[in-house]
Amino acid sequence: MASCSLLLAACGNLKNSDLASNSTTTTSEAKKYETTSSTDGGYSVLLKKGVYKTSPISGLEATNYDNSVDESAMERGLIRVSKKVFSTKDYVIQEGQQLDEATVTNWLGRYSKSNKEGLNLKNNGKTGSTTRNPIILQQIMEEDFYVKSGSSYKLAGISISLGLNSVDYYTKTTDGAEYSTKISPAKRRAFGQKTANTIVSRLHAKTKLKNIPIMVGLFSKTDTDSLVGGTYFSYGTASANSSKISKWSSVNEKTQVLPTVDGASAVSASDKSKFTSFKDEIEDYFPNVSGVTATLRYYDGKLAYESIAITTQFYGYLQVQSFAQTVMSRAKKYLGTSSPVEITISSVNDTQAVVAKETATGSYRMHIYGGN
Amino acid sequence: MASCSLLLAACGNLKNSDLASNSTTTTSEAKKYETTSSTDGGYSVLLKKGVYKTSPISGLEATNYDNSVDESAMERGLIRVSKKVFSTKDYVIQEGQQLDEATVTNWLGRYSKSNKEGLNLKNNGKTGSTTRNPIILQQIMEEDFYVKSGSSYKLAGISISLGLNSVDYYTKTTDGAEYSTKISPAKRRAFGQKTANTIVSRLHAKTKLKNIPIMVGLFSKTDTDSLVGGTYFSYGTASANSSKISKWSSVNEKTQVLPTVDGASAVSASDKSKFTSFKDEIEDYFPNVSGVTATLRYYDGKLAYESIAITTQFYGYLQVQSFAQTVMSRAKKYLGTSSPVEITISSVNDTQAVVAKETATGSYRMHIYGGN
Repeated sequence: MASCSLLLAACGNLKNSDLASNSTTTTSEAKKYETTSSTDGGYSVLLKKGVYKTSPISGLEATNYDNSVDESAMERGLIRVSKKVFSTKDYVIQEGQQLDEATVTNWLGRYSKSNKEGLNLKNNGKTGSTTRNPIILQQIMEEDFYVKSGSSYKLAGISISLGLNSVDYYTKTTDGAEYSTKISPAKRRAFGQKTANTIVSRLHAKTKLKNIPIMVGLFSKTDTDSLVGGTYFSYGTASANSSKISKWSSVNEKTQVLPTVDGASAVSASDKSKFTSFKDEIEDYFPNVSGVTATLRYYDGKLAYESIAITTQFYGYLQVQSFAQTVMSRAKKYLGTSSPVEITISSVNDTQAVVAKETATGSYRMHIYGGN
Repeated sequence: MASCSLLLAACGNLKNSDLASNSTTTTSEAKKYETTSSTDGGYSVLLKKGVYKTSPISGLEATNYDNSVDESAMERGLIRVSKKVFSTKDYVIQEGQQLDEATVTNWLGRYSKSNKEGLNLKNNGKTGSTTRNPIILQQIMEEDFYVKSGSSYKLAGISISLGLNSVDYYTKTTDGAEYSTKISPAKRRAFGQKTANTIVSRLHAKTKLKNIPIMVGLFSKTDTDSLVGGTYFSYGTASANSSKISKWSSVNEKTQVLPTVDGASAVSASDKSKFTSFKDEIEDYFPNVSGVTATLRYYDGKLAYESIAITTQFYGYLQVQSFAQTVMSRAKKYLGTSSPVEITISSVNDTQAVVAKETATGSYRMHIYGGN
């Protein structure tokens, strides 16, 4: 367990750390603690000496092939799932600081004699796509949750995300052809839950962390041909001192791109129909519209976010002004009232304008880059 | 005057054209005329059969070297100057349709035996940077202004912009080294005014256009080393039937990038100081901010638009949320209240967020791409 000492060192001693007193004022020279205000329903972010603290493990991945995870979707989802466990009213958030780079590098490796910390399955010596042991755990992400304690803040919760491959891409020789091993949903789930318990027991073995609840979310990566990022499918929380997660809850997330390809059916026929009406009118109204696509995110069966990308082959100032106006009026007319909507109007190189409503019931607003 | 026939053909006969009756409704199948609503203080745009009409001369340039004009600045400025002549209350706008591609291609050429329409100076056979005749007229832009006439619209004004080089880049042999000829402000002005009169007399010689007032704006391109686009310096209007512009008015436009380089002094020390305070706090608050620059546009000595670009080396969801909040609070604290402000937060590949107030006295709003 060589990497444990690294982990301990990284955990440090919060009481003696330079995380000390202060509030949300922004001008005191002596301040060490500070939070940035949150967006609607979001967490306030805990800064350190006025500076945003980044996680030392961000970007670490198990392999360099085509397995790379959509980190933005993974992080956004982790924070969303965390809200079910750590209330945004009581907790402030900071990017994970408990796991360090050396530890996570070991954990993302295969189990072997020289890396007994490795969480991926050992190399069984086979290279056949169905006979080898695939790399399933591709990435680990951590977020920390603090509560106010007197004039300071103390760590009170940790969320861990396990980024799990649905397809593991690999080569048989260095720079050789790329092969792939599929990982079934059942296998991914079983592996994810077992690995989550291993991580929980390792973290709760540390004196400084044993009383900290740990939430683990299981994130399923899509294959590289997919147009959409991955989604969470399960999460569970280990209470203080517990070495395992006894209850797993489902997460119902779906992402869909419209128009659908290969005759795939829409998650919601109504959302699809609204988008099609919007798209048809936009394409009729202006020449040079080369693409209109939507990405829709569904949480618990409801449309939660709709993002529409319009690509044009024009650049003119008047064209963009006029087009953005039309897009806004058609969005009001056709698009749903159940989710925030983001519409970007881009030419080949630049975003020209954004038309958006930030909440389901909000008003559309428009920003045209470069002004009048 | 071979190209005149082309011009005449392009002008056509408005009464007999398929530009016919109708209003701003958007659902009638029979509609041929329609306008899109305007932004604050802007023109409504005249569509044709529901479709935005692009100008056939857009993008035409006299040379292919490094002379290319910032078309967006040229068009934005032309519309701004046009407002002094054609009120946004009385006129609707359409991209120029009176000049066609063949005509403007001839006009942008040098005067020669085979191109007597050429508006650039004839080739004097010399190649020395101070002895040759430079290409001064680089680009021509047109906007048309219509007024309502019964149930239809009729052409009632034309704005022409002449994009004039301050430096003409050229080669002595095909694919050879690039040389340049500087054109003084006085020479640019004299050439621009003379050329404007030539264009006015050519257009007013057409029966269909002789009663249409023509505004001509003179746009000065900056050299390629400049960080900012060009600006207008003069404009004048030829009344109906007039063959020349008898009075020229000055346009006072300045664009400046902050921080200034090479010890250049700021247009406004106060605006510079506000930006510096904003920049310093942003850079202190977050790691990985790799650049903060501002582009300020001054019209008639007043700050009219401030655009700030923040480049970061981070991508995380939480980082962008938190950073955008901080940027917005610092913008409110430091930046001026006399102009609209646009602040983009971008990583290497993408715009991550935009924080902006659309009017001088408006509220700041923020849009984070990708949503929650």
